[in-house]
Amino acid sequence: MKLDKLVGERFKEKPSDCVIESHALMMRGGYMKDVAKGIYSQYMPLKRICRKIEEIIREEMDAIDGQEVLFPVTLPATLWDESGRYESVGSELLRFQDRNGTKMVLGMTHEEAAVQLVRDYAKSYQNYPFMIYQIQTKFRDEARPRAGLIRVREFTMKDAYSFHTSQEDLQAYYQVCYDAYNRIFARTGIPQVVTVASDSGMMGGNLAHEYMLLTPIGEDSIAICDSCDYRANMEAAESIIENEKDADDEALTKVHTPNIHTIEEICDFLKSPLHKSCKAVVYQKNMTDDYVVIFILGDLDVNETKLTNYLGEDVHPAVITAECGLNAGFIGPVGLTVTGDYTVIYDKSLEGTNNLSCGANDEEYHYTGLCMERDVPDAQYVDVAKIIDGGICPKCGQKHIKISRGIEVGNIFQLGTKYTKSMNMQYLDAEGNAQYPIMGCYGIGVGRLAASVCESHHDDYGPIWPISIAPWQVHLCCLRADDAEAKACADSLYDQLQKEHIEVIYDDRAVRPGVMFSDADLLGVPIRLVVSPRNMKESVVELSTRDKSVQDKVAIDDVVGTVKNLIQKLFDEMEK
Amino acid sequence: MKLDKLVGERFKEKPSDCVIESHALMMRGGYMKDVAKGIYSQYMPLKRICRKIEEIIREEMDAIDGQEVLFPVTLPATLWDESGRYESVGSELLRFQDRNGTKMVLGMTHEEAAVQLVRDYAKSYQNYPFMIYQIQTKFRDEARPRAGLIRVREFTMKDAYSFHTSQEDLQAYYQVCYDAYNRIFARTGIPQVVTVASDSGMMGGNLAHEYMLLTPIGEDSIAICDSCDYRANMEAAESIIENEKDADDEALTKVHTPNIHTIEEICDFLKSPLHKSCKAVVYQKNMTDDYVVIFILGDLDVNETKLTNYLGEDVHPAVITAECGLNAGFIGPVGLTVTGDYTVIYDKSLEGTNNLSCGANDEEYHYTGLCMERDVPDAQYVDVAKIIDGGICPKCGQKHIKISRGIEVGNIFQLGTKYTKSMNMQYLDAEGNAQYPIMGCYGIGVGRLAASVCESHHDDYGPIWPISIAPWQVHLCCLRADDAEAKACADSLYDQLQKEHIEVIYDDRAVRPGVMFSDADLLGVPIRLVVSPRNMKESVVELSTRDKSVQDKVAIDDVVGTVKNLIQKLFDEMEK
Repeated sequence: MKLDKLVGERFKEKPSDCVIESHALMMRGGYMKDVAKGIYSQYMPLKRICRKIEEIIREEMDAIDGQEVLFPVTLPATLWDESGRYESVGSELLRFQDRNGTKMVLGMTHEEAAVQLVRDYAKSYQNYPFMIYQIQTKFRDEARPRAGLIRVREFTMKDAYSFHTSQEDLQAYYQVCYDAYNRIFARTGIPQVVTVASDSGMMGGNLAHEYMLLTPIGEDSIAICDSCDYRANMEAAESIIENEKDADDEALTKVHTPNIHTIEEICDFLKSPLHKSCKAVVYQKNMTDDYVVIFILGDLDVNETKLTNYLGEDVHPAVITAECGLNAGFIGPVGLTVTGDYTVIYDKSLEGTNNLSCGANDEEYHYTGLCMERDVPDAQYVDVAKIIDGGICPKCGQKHIKISRGIEVGNIFQLGTKYTKSMNMQYLDAEGNAQYPIMGCYGIGVGRLAASVCESHHDDYGPIWPISIAPWQVHLCCLRADDAEAKACADSLYDQLQKEHIEVIYDDRAVRPGVMFSDADLLGVPIRLVVSPRNMKESVVELSTRDKSVQDKVAIDDVVGTVKNLIQKLFDEMEK
Repeated sequence: MKLDKLVGERFKEKPSDCVIESHALMMRGGYMKDVAKGIYSQYMPLKRICRKIEEIIREEMDAIDGQEVLFPVTLPATLWDESGRYESVGSELLRFQDRNGTKMVLGMTHEEAAVQLVRDYAKSYQNYPFMIYQIQTKFRDEARPRAGLIRVREFTMKDAYSFHTSQEDLQAYYQVCYDAYNRIFARTGIPQVVTVASDSGMMGGNLAHEYMLLTPIGEDSIAICDSCDYRANMEAAESIIENEKDADDEALTKVHTPNIHTIEEICDFLKSPLHKSCKAVVYQKNMTDDYVVIFILGDLDVNETKLTNYLGEDVHPAVITAECGLNAGFIGPVGLTVTGDYTVIYDKSLEGTNNLSCGANDEEYHYTGLCMERDVPDAQYVDVAKIIDGGICPKCGQKHIKISRGIEVGNIFQLGTKYTKSMNMQYLDAEGNAQYPIMGCYGIGVGRLAASVCESHHDDYGPIWPISIAPWQVHLCCLRADDAEAKACADSLYDQLQKEHIEVIYDDRAVRPGVMFSDADLLGVPIRLVVSPRNMKESVVELSTRDKSVQDKVAIDDVVGTVKNLIQKLFDEMEK
């Protein structure tokens, strides 16, 4: 490929709407272009990167007996009605009608389509286990697309679905897939990806893992124990609290607290610490607007994912009206009244505590001396608190939890029979009894993976693509293409390298070296060759790697051989 | 791949809704499954066929300097507003709104997206020419999806867009692409595809060609001259009529014609031939419902595409109401009255004719003796007639036109500046003047191509896939897998062939030979190996091709070498 014909703009200035480096560099390097909010077109360099990533994924999926199939992007709503998700999934599911008024959706995940494809086929236990996967465009109508390819609305995804006749068989395959995922991330250049236990969210099912690239720009928060191997998405992490209890219970005392509305203000006013207070957090159920009042220790926050899972439905922060019976700013567990149906939840952090301050459900009044056992004897405690930095590890019990940020580059779920039951997929077991197969599902977003590799491999001047997914392997620069000797040498190298099936991008433009090199930096090709009149005098070519680990001069006749060896070496280093 | 784990159902009975063989065989062979009307999921065999087709297309596009890019499936309506197509395209364009109420469409073609991707980049004549292409999912909300993969709503398509600074440059590249298309069809197994001049339809522009696989089940009608090289889609074919004129003009005479409503009935009543009558055909404009009355020789039909092109807007067959002033069944060119705005068109077939019968615009009356020159002196004649079988070739003038049926497997268009002008894409030429680039576009539907290959390569038992796109290269059958010696031999061959990177599907199921062979026929793999206890006695394996051109016994030790040579030979034969 000649660079002078490469379609796409490259430029120096960081676009003002780019908050992370991969986004900025991909815009500056002519990798992609905005079409709509969270929707991009890809230029050739990014398309080549994504195709190489897809090929690596395909190889690893085929190696674990995956069968590549293709599901439609457009799906009938009836299919999503079967699983119940047409109703239950929020507005990130794009619903539309075709010309005949038939309700349809744009596929954001394909569990329903997978079950539909195989349920008439897999009627006997002898058909199991099997795994099908696709690499296909998906659409997810994100409320806030952002960070370039990290969170988009339209994306290419590999999604795989496995079907099993026992939980043991699923678990064995889950481990196989777990290992394949680690190979995929190693082969694409981010072996440092870690797995964390995760919440299975709207996918349903029980056990799930996310593959996280740890980076401060990540959208996810991850609880990692630095004394054992515990790692979990904060959404899923259990919060363990050593509840403190004073030796003596104080009396429950109503205190006049004018102009005090927050838990911080009341603690300040009473000169007592936050963790000696009982905070109220109020939500409403999305479906019914019924109130959900959570009481939790004052220094903790509510984990909405755990709350949603406990309730079995979605919630939103409450709008507290005059009619609802709640005294905003003065809500407490003693004497609470709410109009209509409502739910009260006590977080585990309150269990057995005493001498807390809390709201008195009375305008301008709080209590001190709240003793949970004595004053709220019927309370049931559940864990809905966010784990905290420095908190207790749920696995080893040490106070060694650190909260890190990460990008989710893949996920695997044990789905159980959620979809096979709801969509009535059955097989006959060896005894002739009808059974529901057990499913697993496994996803990787291709574009997000490309952006994640860029996040972990770049400098100020551009991406530093690993050889395995680089848009080209060699970037050949001819400085002073008007110099006949240099041009002839570069042309000849271009031909020779291509004959050896080496992927070359060739820059023979009449531009200053600075422009040439900054373009090369933005394209991030791992091996660079520079032909110039000065080098010609010594009959050498400059050879360097984008990461500067190699900077050499090579005799012209040795260039092709040296490049071939270097490519192999770079691949070998990734395999380690 | 072991056949016993291949996901998908195979069955004997032709599904009742399958009217063409490729559809029936692909359903029966476990290639695809209905998800909604005109929307399919693909099982592994079809996905593999499509991937091989895509790879051939990609190689040929890369070889003519194409740059692979990717446009979104979901596009903002604003982009289609720029070109005017958001309004002008009918309901096959799927329009929807995202969660924020923003109007969007599902891409059915990507001219707008292509211009959007490159218009900020290609500002100088030095950037030209270039071609970008993608292989991506498209959605076209067909009113009547049918014939399996021939006419679907969701499909994978390769669409390419080239940009030029002169018509000459476009034409030169158009020819390059024309040749590349011929190579693609030859390499996928249908070298017999012919090109026909076509109408450019909603794409706009001037010159266009379609690539047609001639077959009686095709949806398109093609006019082919068997005395010269003229070939055109009937939609685009010019109709040439040798208008006959009697020596003497008869008088225009009003005849009472009770209970006579069609042109056939009046000719029968008058005992005069159809081509001595002037037929009226009435349409209404889609936008305004204004009437369009076409007069045409009685034995010809109106070509709606030519009519639409002439009018510059879409029409539908008229609903003739009591108020419109038209006397259905008695409409004629003399004394015609229509309420409101209307258009009258005279087809060229009427020019200079005389002594015709026609409607008298009066209930129960017709005229005889209509002489166009005398009775309709102001008529302007345009060509809106369908070319007929046995008609005159517009190129050589011989009466050698034959009408054939064909499947359109690809198309190429010279678009001119329709999109660059409407979307304001400009470059500066060598003199510094702003110019609009000239575009070409080039499409191939991947699934339709697969189905077309199946149409031209199958027998009663299944497809006969060409080696270049077959889902596997070798189908290995082990008859009597319970025979240890046979099983060991087949297992060993399976391993050896895979080590040689030969694609093998291996059937070692405990099923009758008849089931094994009918499944193999349905999968249509070009080379078949049969291991059986009987063959083991002779230390041979049966080797045959799916088309039965090879049927041989090969010594076990020679099998791998023989298969390798045969694969090469099959590829070589396709290259011829």
